[in-house]
Amino acid sequence: MAIKVHGALLSTATMRVFACLNEKELDFEFVPVNLGTGEHKKEPFLSFNPFGQVPGFEDGDLKLFESRAITQYIARTYADKGTPLVYEDRKKMAILSVWMEVEAQKFETPASKLSWELCIKPAIGMVTDDAVVEEQEPELAKVLDVYEARLAKSKYLGGDTFTLADLHHLPNINYLMGTRVKAVYDSRPHVSAWCADILARPAWKKVVAMRNQ
Amino acid sequence: MAIKVHGALLSTATMRVFACLNEKELDFEFVPVNLGTGEHKKEPFLSFNPFGQVPGFEDGDLKLFESRAITQYIARTYADKGTPLVYEDRKKMAILSVWMEVEAQKFETPASKLSWELCIKPAIGMVTDDAVVEEQEPELAKVLDVYEARLAKSKYLGGDTFTLADLHHLPNINYLMGTRVKAVYDSRPHVSAWCADILARPAWKKVVAMRNQ
Repeated sequence: MAIKVHGALLSTATMRVFACLNEKELDFEFVPVNLGTGEHKKEPFLSFNPFGQVPGFEDGDLKLFESRAITQYIARTYADKGTPLVYEDRKKMAILSVWMEVEAQKFETPASKLSWELCIKPAIGMVTDDAVVEEQEPELAKVLDVYEARLAKSKYLGGDTFTLADLHHLPNINYLMGTRVKAVYDSRPHVSAWCADILARPAWKKVVAMRNQ
Repeated sequence: MAIKVHGALLSTATMRVFACLNEKELDFEFVPVNLGTGEHKKEPFLSFNPFGQVPGFEDGDLKLFESRAITQYIARTYADKGTPLVYEDRKKMAILSVWMEVEAQKFETPASKLSWELCIKPAIGMVTDDAVVEEQEPELAKVLDVYEARLAKSKYLGGDTFTLADLHHLPNINYLMGTRVKAVYDSRPHVSAWCADILARPAWKKVVAMRNQ
């Protein structure tokens, strides 16, 4: 099999890549990396990613890291398969890029800190730091206020169709929907409808099923 | 004139867009946004960027924000002008994307916090918080260790030629070269040579000259 993902099922970045591969209906091999024993901080994993973070990605002789670079590679290289996740039109693609940057620069920090505190730490036997939750929840709310206005005018964040700009959010949204932070989403009707829509995608449901196995 | 940049000369994100336009030898109009009076947090600027951050970018009827989305749009739309800043080859572009993500996800946070504390705060009459500097300097050093290894094997971060992956670093590197953090760069020979190389580019020197006017 040509495509391999070296990662961990609890990792939002790994799930992001799985979601993209599923949307593109691509087969891949999952190679688990044991974060508990620090496998990601040692060779051979460091030869994939010198920062020691999952996932590492292989497609034949090409090796990549950084989940958002991987999804862009997949979306462009397998443009003719599955769901189109980027636009060919230059201006539409520019708008999509803006919202990909917003996810990475504005949404990711509060959302991943909240996922870590409220979902991942309890799952691995660590204790939630409530002070971090108190601090990050309003930060996330500010971002979602902008999303609410955007989604009142546009069906999806990047444009009229589901794209990478939406897909990149899925792992953190999925985590937070099982926590008190769900209320921050639910209180914004367009955000709430968007979350329900993208979480219901079969490609995402396959990721959740894989994690729950 | 078709291209307008609404921004501020002290803003790293604004300088990033200027550097890109200069590499592409494109004319543009600079529309100053007064951050001191909070012009970026009010209309009409919020219609550019609902997060209230400079720059806002116009190319005819297209309006964009997020500096890295803007540079990608410029690099692709004006591919035939000035310096090529992205690759056509899918695999080379994927590697370039990895290093663009590294800049955005790993380098930006410590570098921009250090630029803010050591350069921008003194420039606008605020006092540097030494505790932040003490905390962020080793974070930046860890990123530059990875860069040192990468640049020992590759002339530029994204590949054999200067690309957006390098360009995106320029504003923060330029700021920090005038501070004690310069030593963190200078102690790594490949990083140091890379910095000297990219800071000497005529397109970047034009940005510095514009700021110093």
